[in-house]
Amino acid sequence: PKMGRKLLPEELLITTGSSQVIDLLCWALLDRGDWVICEEPTFLGATGTMYNHGARFLTVPCDSEGMKVELLPDLIERALASGNRIKFIYTIVNFHNPLGCDLSLERRKRLLEIASTYGIMILEDDPYGWVRFEGEEIQSLFSMDEQGLVVFASSFSKILAPGTRVAWCAGNSEIIRKMAVFKQGTDTCTSVVVQAIVWEYCRLGHLDSFLPRIVSHYRDKRDGMEAALQKYMPAERVSWQKPKGGFFYWISAPGIPAEELLKRAVEKKVAFVPGEAFYPTGTGGRDDFRMCFTFASPEMTDLGVEKLGEAISEFE
Amino acid sequence: PKMGRKLLPEELLITTGSSQVIDLLCWALLDRGDWVICEEPTFLGATGTMYNHGARFLTVPCDSEGMKVELLPDLIERALASGNRIKFIYTIVNFHNPLGCDLSLERRKRLLEIASTYGIMILEDDPYGWVRFEGEEIQSLFSMDEQGLVVFASSFSKILAPGTRVAWCAGNSEIIRKMAVFKQGTDTCTSVVVQAIVWEYCRLGHLDSFLPRIVSHYRDKRDGMEAALQKYMPAERVSWQKPKGGFFYWISAPGIPAEELLKRAVEKKVAFVPGEAFYPTGTGGRDDFRMCFTFASPEMTDLGVEKLGEAISEFE
Repeated sequence: PKMGRKLLPEELLITTGSSQVIDLLCWALLDRGDWVICEEPTFLGATGTMYNHGARFLTVPCDSEGMKVELLPDLIERALASGNRIKFIYTIVNFHNPLGCDLSLERRKRLLEIASTYGIMILEDDPYGWVRFEGEEIQSLFSMDEQGLVVFASSFSKILAPGTRVAWCAGNSEIIRKMAVFKQGTDTCTSVVVQAIVWEYCRLGHLDSFLPRIVSHYRDKRDGMEAALQKYMPAERVSWQKPKGGFFYWISAPGIPAEELLKRAVEKKVAFVPGEAFYPTGTGGRDDFRMCFTFASPEMTDLGVEKLGEAISEFE
Repeated sequence: PKMGRKLLPEELLITTGSSQVIDLLCWALLDRGDWVICEEPTFLGATGTMYNHGARFLTVPCDSEGMKVELLPDLIERALASGNRIKFIYTIVNFHNPLGCDLSLERRKRLLEIASTYGIMILEDDPYGWVRFEGEEIQSLFSMDEQGLVVFASSFSKILAPGTRVAWCAGNSEIIRKMAVFKQGTDTCTSVVVQAIVWEYCRLGHLDSFLPRIVSHYRDKRDGMEAALQKYMPAERVSWQKPKGGFFYWISAPGIPAEELLKRAVEKKVAFVPGEAFYPTGTGGRDDFRMCFTFASPEMTDLGVEKLGEAISEFE
């Protein structure tokens, strides 16, 4: 998750949350009607912002190793052949939202090759990379990029506090300069009061000492949800992959529409996000849903998953 | 400057500086190519943001009572006749940036009538209203608006600290809701850390006790610049109006191009903002410039104005 190399000052921009990175990159690159390539499913906040800027989406399905990058060349060729301009590829590399998976090193390398072949920029969104419970860190796209095609984004939201609204992005000086210009047109600058607080917090070593604690705290919650899922989920109807970090479980329940399940679950006071919300082209996720494990207490998680298991079992 | 009435929660939106109010109102109202009516000259940051959103500008000249609102009906009629859509009127009501003048009560009432006749919204930008050195407070447009056409914007930037990046806007619940939706696409929310700091600061009464001090501090600086202008400016070549509040002097120097004057002034280590920057249609301000009096020390202001007077006198 670490960016993997030192930055020059002109390669860095502090932003008001990493949602602003997306907003500013859109300002800098997108004209209405331009295309963005993203994983499907993907973070709906990101595609929502891109949509506001008039983006249209080319989507790539994922498996347990993340975006199926081998599908990209064909997708890109077809889009270019029909005269579409592709402005960037949006990818959540570590502990994907909503899938929970990592983009494998192999695929990262291949993705960079493809981006470089077609001269397409990449937005590497990595809010969860620091929240790793096990396994080896995988090199960032940014650290392997030799052509300045990657804009890396991360945030203090998941490792300090979400209300901080201090995030950052790194990229080639040209794109960062453009984004900084547009930043002046949106909020001028990120609150220097809160920047100073975050700086002091880091400088005094609090982040370094807090990180292992929060990671361990979230790991316990992940383990709690995993145990509850094993205990209460009807194994023949649902499947999931245990995430190695991040915030989310992605549950597949073939034949059980998540929207309908949500209605029944809410009656039992359990909520989740139905999968369709994460499909910008609206063509999937009907029988999938996302559960966040970082917020609820172990008891509530256990009770919630039990109730959810009941709701699923009640489906014909 | 006070808004003049109590707000319902759904009429209020906290923003990341009041530049974000402009950004969000543009998101909520503007399609590319739509028209915005503004004073000329006006705050270049505001028109810059609107320009990013594809706004085109209809401008209204000002005199010592602010926008010449009697010109509006004709301007609007002609624009509508040629099929243009006018989305809102942008006005800085108190201690105008860059002019320093107030929009008179008479004109405020007339402006509301006109806006209501044509059903055009008004963005009442009031960052300086609390910084009044003398004279009577003038009722806000927002407080007199009975039809929900006015969005009022103000900020803690000028009365607490600019780096705070906490501002607010108030308007009818429908427009505020739309702006809140777009806010989620830009920075999600304004830092709750800094919101909490500002809240505590206000709650403990520090803002109330600080305001008279900062106003008096700025009044002294205004008086210092006024005295220096009287002392050093060649009276036959330049004119200005003493502002009753705010941050700025607007100096007119007929026959002396401000861009050229700036070059010579910079050699004497004096800087100001040439007037043309404040003309979104680029059709005026050539012989005018803006000076900010709130930053420099009295000694520096005196020395700076002396040097500037020299530079002006050196013009043929």
